[in-house]
Amino acid sequence: MSEESPDMHLSKDEFQNYGYQLVDWLAEYFDKIEQYEVLPSIEPGDIREMLPDSAPEKAESMDEIIADLDRVVMPGMAHWQHPGWYAFFPSGASPVSALGEFVAAGLATQGMMWSTAPSATEIENTVLDWLVDLLGLPSSWKINEGPGGGVIQMSASDSTHLSLAVARHQLEIAGIDGNSLVVYGSSHAHSSIEKGARIAGYKHIRSVPVTQSFDMDANSLAQLVSEDIRSGLVPAWVCSSIGTTNTTAMDPIRRIASIAADNGMWHHADAAYAGSAMICPEFRELQDGVELVDSYTFNPHKWLLTNFDCSIFWVADRSKLVQTLNILPPYLRNETEENPAAIDYRNWHVPLGRRFRALKLWFVLRSYGSENLRAFIRSHVAWATELEKRVNDDPRLELTAPRTLALVCFRHSGGNESTKALVDAINASGSAYVTPSVIDDVSYIRVSIGSTWTKQRHVEDLWNLIDANAGPR
Amino acid sequence: MSEESPDMHLSKDEFQNYGYQLVDWLAEYFDKIEQYEVLPSIEPGDIREMLPDSAPEKAESMDEIIADLDRVVMPGMAHWQHPGWYAFFPSGASPVSALGEFVAAGLATQGMMWSTAPSATEIENTVLDWLVDLLGLPSSWKINEGPGGGVIQMSASDSTHLSLAVARHQLEIAGIDGNSLVVYGSSHAHSSIEKGARIAGYKHIRSVPVTQSFDMDANSLAQLVSEDIRSGLVPAWVCSSIGTTNTTAMDPIRRIASIAADNGMWHHADAAYAGSAMICPEFRELQDGVELVDSYTFNPHKWLLTNFDCSIFWVADRSKLVQTLNILPPYLRNETEENPAAIDYRNWHVPLGRRFRALKLWFVLRSYGSENLRAFIRSHVAWATELEKRVNDDPRLELTAPRTLALVCFRHSGGNESTKALVDAINASGSAYVTPSVIDDVSYIRVSIGSTWTKQRHVEDLWNLIDANAGPR
Repeated sequence: MSEESPDMHLSKDEFQNYGYQLVDWLAEYFDKIEQYEVLPSIEPGDIREMLPDSAPEKAESMDEIIADLDRVVMPGMAHWQHPGWYAFFPSGASPVSALGEFVAAGLATQGMMWSTAPSATEIENTVLDWLVDLLGLPSSWKINEGPGGGVIQMSASDSTHLSLAVARHQLEIAGIDGNSLVVYGSSHAHSSIEKGARIAGYKHIRSVPVTQSFDMDANSLAQLVSEDIRSGLVPAWVCSSIGTTNTTAMDPIRRIASIAADNGMWHHADAAYAGSAMICPEFRELQDGVELVDSYTFNPHKWLLTNFDCSIFWVADRSKLVQTLNILPPYLRNETEENPAAIDYRNWHVPLGRRFRALKLWFVLRSYGSENLRAFIRSHVAWATELEKRVNDDPRLELTAPRTLALVCFRHSGGNESTKALVDAINASGSAYVTPSVIDDVSYIRVSIGSTWTKQRHVEDLWNLIDANAGPR
Repeated sequence: MSEESPDMHLSKDEFQNYGYQLVDWLAEYFDKIEQYEVLPSIEPGDIREMLPDSAPEKAESMDEIIADLDRVVMPGMAHWQHPGWYAFFPSGASPVSALGEFVAAGLATQGMMWSTAPSATEIENTVLDWLVDLLGLPSSWKINEGPGGGVIQMSASDSTHLSLAVARHQLEIAGIDGNSLVVYGSSHAHSSIEKGARIAGYKHIRSVPVTQSFDMDANSLAQLVSEDIRSGLVPAWVCSSIGTTNTTAMDPIRRIASIAADNGMWHHADAAYAGSAMICPEFRELQDGVELVDSYTFNPHKWLLTNFDCSIFWVADRSKLVQTLNILPPYLRNETEENPAAIDYRNWHVPLGRRFRALKLWFVLRSYGSENLRAFIRSHVAWATELEKRVNDDPRLELTAPRTLALVCFRHSGGNESTKALVDAINASGSAYVTPSVIDDVSYIRVSIGSTWTKQRHVEDLWNLIDANAGPR
């Protein structure tokens, strides 16, 4: 046969050499991450200006490429792994998780079907079943027991979107006009509901009022549902937020479940952040009634030491999911397609292909052990509780929402301008980053404690920064 | 403050020690991959049986976890990176790409907005603009020039689904009833079209007949569109397959574009596999007219040495994408949200969060250089051309479709039973894996040449296997 491909891949020695270098580079990064400013000081376009306008014709050396991690990448990093990261919710990675991702990338198995990736499929089945027990969820959500089951998705937005798409398809095949379907979430529910509903083609989205503690007012939900039915619409889907993004408010799942059941609605639970805390039994009262929902999502990539992406999506009845998504062309037919022990995950989400994300999760759950994972969560909640107390005891500051887990929401008593000045001072320090937000025109500060490398002393430092910048007592 | 979190993370020394071990483990894997059987000899449930029923309470040692790669993972691996992998399409990873994924996992930056990940965002902007030139696509698809732009998605299925959702939303905000919209793809188009259309809520999906070479019959498309309009429906979206999965047939893009333009339809191009070949100018005639489409997807994770997931999605007009997907809650407001040089990729796909996938692509494009990447593609096409010739010259075998790139489709002249026996013999060898498929009740064999480690001698071996198992000449 004609022309051999040139030997262009890294040799074994080269791979080992550069692999070790990058292990060392990351080891240094983890070790010194605190010395970086949390946010970079650059303008849009600055990173791009350091890069050429076209791809190189000739191969470049790995030495040059690795050097560009410091020259190009570092100057434009917002360090999500910095111990002073209190913004948004944490993006919890860990050294172990990075090692798992590395191995998965090297194996590069593609898990669209059991037959194309038996290990990846069964390890995913297994660790997701482990998590059902760890989080105190219904055992009928285990792949092994059914009729439910879990699957790793990219993000909670994907899970929410998918539950919306499945709910819609189920109602449409029952003969209901898609244009009449209505989606409900609280006014504090995540933006992924509106986004997912729009993508899934829903025409009616209701923002349900919240109570004083910012959880969904179930009476208002019942009233909106009744009004919509009277108008000839069909209530289709409702989300219980188990920890809103604004304040980690907890919706009344049991009451919402009752309204959903009475009206044949799909009931989805978004525990993207708070789900990780449910490995500690003492927090499970926050999701009382969770056994009644039709689907549930939480993100180990937020608060369980597993790097993005790793979002779990459970459904109470997997047959509805598979019925909606299964399309079987001849080139995907295979001998185990009818075998219930051989899950074809391609029928559990929008993509066809998928990588071996369960590997890093398996590494994390084993390397830490459940005991340590609980201690990790509990320490953050304890520090947040202490921070909440200090805010409450300080006349210059006011809590703006009840704390349920490790997010503390407060403002400056002087009002929005003073609050903005305080946010700016904290973020300008370079050692901490908090997110400002606003509810009903009241600006406030979100302090989300949960980064992998955050220790008690960092939260002390943050408090000192708040104290020093809040003005005279 | 109360209780310190235990020091549970890998220490710097531990991370380096286990990191080196895993670099060595992968180096061995790449080096010895040929010695594995391509497919495992296990039954559903076998891997799961090796695992405990619950997560460990106590931390396990990394030594034990790493040992389980050989004990648990390897016995259930379908080795997509095996040089004898000719099944489906390749899942092209590389050592360099795995290193890039590793660094991205360690940095764990989260790129939902420019402000949360400037480097990740601008490196993605840049390498996707590089690829516009490398593939000979319209320069107006560059982020830098516009009005188009590119984004990394998980898979081509996601891109196809998203283009369907955007097309639908655009027509609906123009006042057209979603229930009247029609989607068109050839009868050989990928199953992701039907799946994506169902998920996006389309009610009418037309399977357009193909010509004798299995590309879309544009006259039939025109006729179906006319019929649908006469029935009061609204043609909304059509896909040009640039390389079908069955046979890599190439749809007539220019003629389809004309029909799409005349009828106000969104025209999507699915070049999931074949797009990588367009880095070689001599293959671009296969996508003549591509500058006329509204969106285009291709997967570097198939044939461009970048591990899954890395699928590129370009749109000719990014404003339609952003208009459909942008929802801005207060906690995501930021100073650069109006700055056109600061792309907020959260508005370019279904998820909110995203990891730094551009890093591995940047590593790959630089480490190989465009010259080597072209040589990589050309060698596969050359070997496929030679294999095609041998099949054609062998009276025991028959080509079942024209070869356009590196996929060879053929059958045994003895018919379906003999073809099945030949597939089974090849796959039972352990040294090669091909996918059987069927068109119009004719069974055939797909040989897709494109794995990272495949060399000329492997294709020779495959030919010898075919020759030895095709029966007497």
